Amino acid sequence: MPRGGSHPLDEMFHPKSIAIIGASTTGQERGWVARLLNFGYDGDLYPVNPKATEIDGLKAYPSVKDIPGPVDYAIFNIPARLAPQVMEDCIAKGVKFVHVYAAGFGETGKEEAKELEARLAAIIKASRVRVIGPNCMGIYCPKADLTFNPDFPKEAGNIAFVSQSGAEAMRFVFLTNSVGMHFSKVISYGNAIDLDAPDVLEYLAGDAETDIIACYIEGVKDGRRYLEAIKECLKVKPVIVLKAGLTESGAGAAVSHTASLAGSEAIWDAFFRQTGAVRAYTMEDVADVIQALLRMRCPKGRRVALVGRGGGIGVIAADICERASLKVPAFHADTRMQLEKVIPEAGAGIRNPVETTYGMGGAAEFYAKGMDIVDADPETDLIITHLAVDVYGGRQADLRQQVTTAAAVLCDVTKTLTKPMAVALYTGGHPEIVGAVLEAQEMLLKAGIPVYPGVEAASKAINKLIRYHELAERQ
Amino acid sequence: MPRGGSHPLDEMFHPKSIAIIGASTTGQERGWVARLLNFGYDGDLYPVNPKATEIDGLKAYPSVKDIPGPVDYAIFNIPARLAPQVMEDCIAKGVKFVHVYAAGFGETGKEEAKELEARLAAIIKASRVRVIGPNCMGIYCPKADLTFNPDFPKEAGNIAFVSQSGAEAMRFVFLTNSVGMHFSKVISYGNAIDLDAPDVLEYLAGDAETDIIACYIEGVKDGRRYLEAIKECLKVKPVIVLKAGLTESGAGAAVSHTASLAGSEAIWDAFFRQTGAVRAYTMEDVADVIQALLRMRCPKGRRVALVGRGGGIGVIAADICERASLKVPAFHADTRMQLEKVIPEAGAGIRNPVETTYGMGGAAEFYAKGMDIVDADPETDLIITHLAVDVYGGRQADLRQQVTTAAAVLCDVTKTLTKPMAVALYTGGHPEIVGAVLEAQEMLLKAGIPVYPGVEAASKAINKLIRYHELAERQ
Repeated sequence: MPRGGSHPLDEMFHPKSIAIIGASTTGQERGWVARLLNFGYDGDLYPVNPKATEIDGLKAYPSVKDIPGPVDYAIFNIPARLAPQVMEDCIAKGVKFVHVYAAGFGETGKEEAKELEARLAAIIKASRVRVIGPNCMGIYCPKADLTFNPDFPKEAGNIAFVSQSGAEAMRFVFLTNSVGMHFSKVISYGNAIDLDAPDVLEYLAGDAETDIIACYIEGVKDGRRYLEAIKECLKVKPVIVLKAGLTESGAGAAVSHTASLAGSEAIWDAFFRQTGAVRAYTMEDVADVIQALLRMRCPKGRRVALVGRGGGIGVIAADICERASLKVPAFHADTRMQLEKVIPEAGAGIRNPVETTYGMGGAAEFYAKGMDIVDADPETDLIITHLAVDVYGGRQADLRQQVTTAAAVLCDVTKTLTKPMAVALYTGGHPEIVGAVLEAQEMLLKAGIPVYPGVEAASKAINKLIRYHELAERQ
Repeated sequence: MPRGGSHPLDEMFHPKSIAIIGASTTGQERGWVARLLNFGYDGDLYPVNPKATEIDGLKAYPSVKDIPGPVDYAIFNIPARLAPQVMEDCIAKGVKFVHVYAAGFGETGKEEAKELEARLAAIIKASRVRVIGPNCMGIYCPKADLTFNPDFPKEAGNIAFVSQSGAEAMRFVFLTNSVGMHFSKVISYGNAIDLDAPDVLEYLAGDAETDIIACYIEGVKDGRRYLEAIKECLKVKPVIVLKAGLTESGAGAAVSHTASLAGSEAIWDAFFRQTGAVRAYTMEDVADVIQALLRMRCPKGRRVALVGRGGGIGVIAADICERASLKVPAFHADTRMQLEKVIPEAGAGIRNPVETTYGMGGAAEFYAKGMDIVDADPETDLIITHLAVDVYGGRQADLRQQVTTAAAVLCDVTKTLTKPMAVALYTGGHPEIVGAVLEAQEMLLKAGIPVYPGVEAASKAINKLIRYHELAERQ
């Protein structure tokens, strides 16, 4: 339903004027008004509260109807029971989009709350207003200086996240930011009284600012429309879906969270088969596959070259790769012959996995001298380099120096690799190792290398990357 | 084969005299002699090196045969090719146990190295000496001040680890220590030319200092004996086994690591069914189940009460629990009624999962007022409390204070709980959250509460704990 070339939801993500209805009179440091001001929102911002004349330096209005100019977007920071009346006011005022932040509707399971939600729905349906929520966090769109969390980064990226859960939306932004990823749009839509996932997905399919779409959903009202919307998106960009509430335990939890009926495992298995959407089971899964999509070319096959220290770690890693539908075959005889010259130490592996010589120095030395040999091997398609920093316990004074030196060599070598590569950094749990690993991770991420907390996460993400491309090519 | 009441391997773990054959003449700070001295070994220590008269302040001997007193234990820090001759010397001297540290034997796959190993094996077989290795790290026994890593903790515990891989032995000690667990004995035995896992397991079954046994194995020479040894152990204590090299990729890796033939998946499936040994796929799995065994009573059933903030996190957690063979049923109506009084906030869950009110303060408040109600619920058998610190992003100045305050309340409340409880602490990846979480983790661990990095690790470990007890009771 595009009007005049642009999609109607464009205005929702980039409102020129916002009313905060129920703005806190105490001028809360982290309240809705303050967080938008601090985030740099420079459209017209109207606090609404009958008990105040000024909030955070802005003139306050007793009602939305008293606001002089037009209002594109209103945030309801008011108790649930007041929502119907205030919605009527917004409709009268001609507000285009409303975000109902409040909870206390259908998700409570209580009759009166369900009736309240039904009443609100009827009001909305009879109007032109589009509504996000209730029981949700709303929109984070850094390009429009719009946020629901005061600590979100202002830097924009090319990932969109459509989340039925507000806390997952918050967690996911921080989780992915910690590995250097950024967002075009995040929307937490809760009970979906009006705008539902398919509406947002239809918009995101054509959004030039979005290259990758992630979805957290508990339930869908119109399954067929959801399927079609996901398919539309998948024609042009990858979509990762975490469908929660598919077990009996999870379905029970979903009902009391967003009043969602979760659907059956069989239906959703078919959904993933039919659409080719990438399936995830945790938000960590979602972040992992996005890293692969953003930072790795798709390997030409599923054959992994494993590089790292620790024979046992290598054997476990090979098992893990195969359980993630990858393979760790022996290198070509020529590769082995060349590797033997680089790692003459007895006990060091040259068959695949490669076992580099002892310590971080041994790792760095191998990256410099041996990585090209691995890269040229004809029997493998991609490289997973694992660095088990925790083998060495992290008690040595110069560990941080050693780890970052090895990381620097790896960053440098990666520039000339022809095969895609991911790095697995094991931390153990000692604070001193964690610190060193986080520093090395930042260096690798800045060099555009995907970094995972272990071979398990890396291999699962790479399998999903390959599978996504296989299905995308078939269409 | 006990002699005079004590097991012969007792002397191996508690040697009164040690010869370091091939002790570094440069007095390496972290070499074998220095690491034993620094670790507090106070038996007779004899450096052997024909090129030195004194090493690390100790008189050095040209050959093991020149040592005046008896030698219980010798460590071969020499090239592989010298091993047969030095072994002959040790036998002539009457050395009881030898640890062949060197690699470069059968695991290289080279004919001459295989022959070398066979020659060494023949020499050993014709004597009374018992040999660990080659291609391994040997023994860590903190009670005997014996170590192969200078940074291992001196504190002893009740866990034994029998590891074919040296690097896994190192990683595992650090990994478990970071969650406050300690060892009775760790042995890394590599190619197992003489002493193999069954020998050590037979000893550990009767070892009063060991309550839990973990095994990392790639291959076994005598499958029946291994099975019987594991069964012996399981009659009196839990055994967790990580069998690596079961996939085609892993089997290939195992051959070049410890020259092991890895066996088939079907055989090992039967092994786990028959013995009741706890199965693990990564060393992290092993550490997780040990935490449950050490710090949780076995729940009376598989029904979990989930407590935490974040509705979506709760739904995902419920799915995760069910996929780990646990259940998250609705609380009893009375429980829900009481919970509603404690968390009147709209949107907060009372059905199970419990959703505590917003923020760390909300969590702490619920622990103080609501945990007893959850504990008394008749529909659930255990509690998993998850604290998604990363939802809040970690940017608030007082986050550390907030998180540790919540942890302190939880520690206090736990004292009176009748149900077993585990805690899942999500970190995201920001250094400031990691720091706060590590501090909270230390407090919880000190209070004897098992702590996991997420509900996935917690639920898998708890399932294994329950399964272990089910199988143990049946015997």
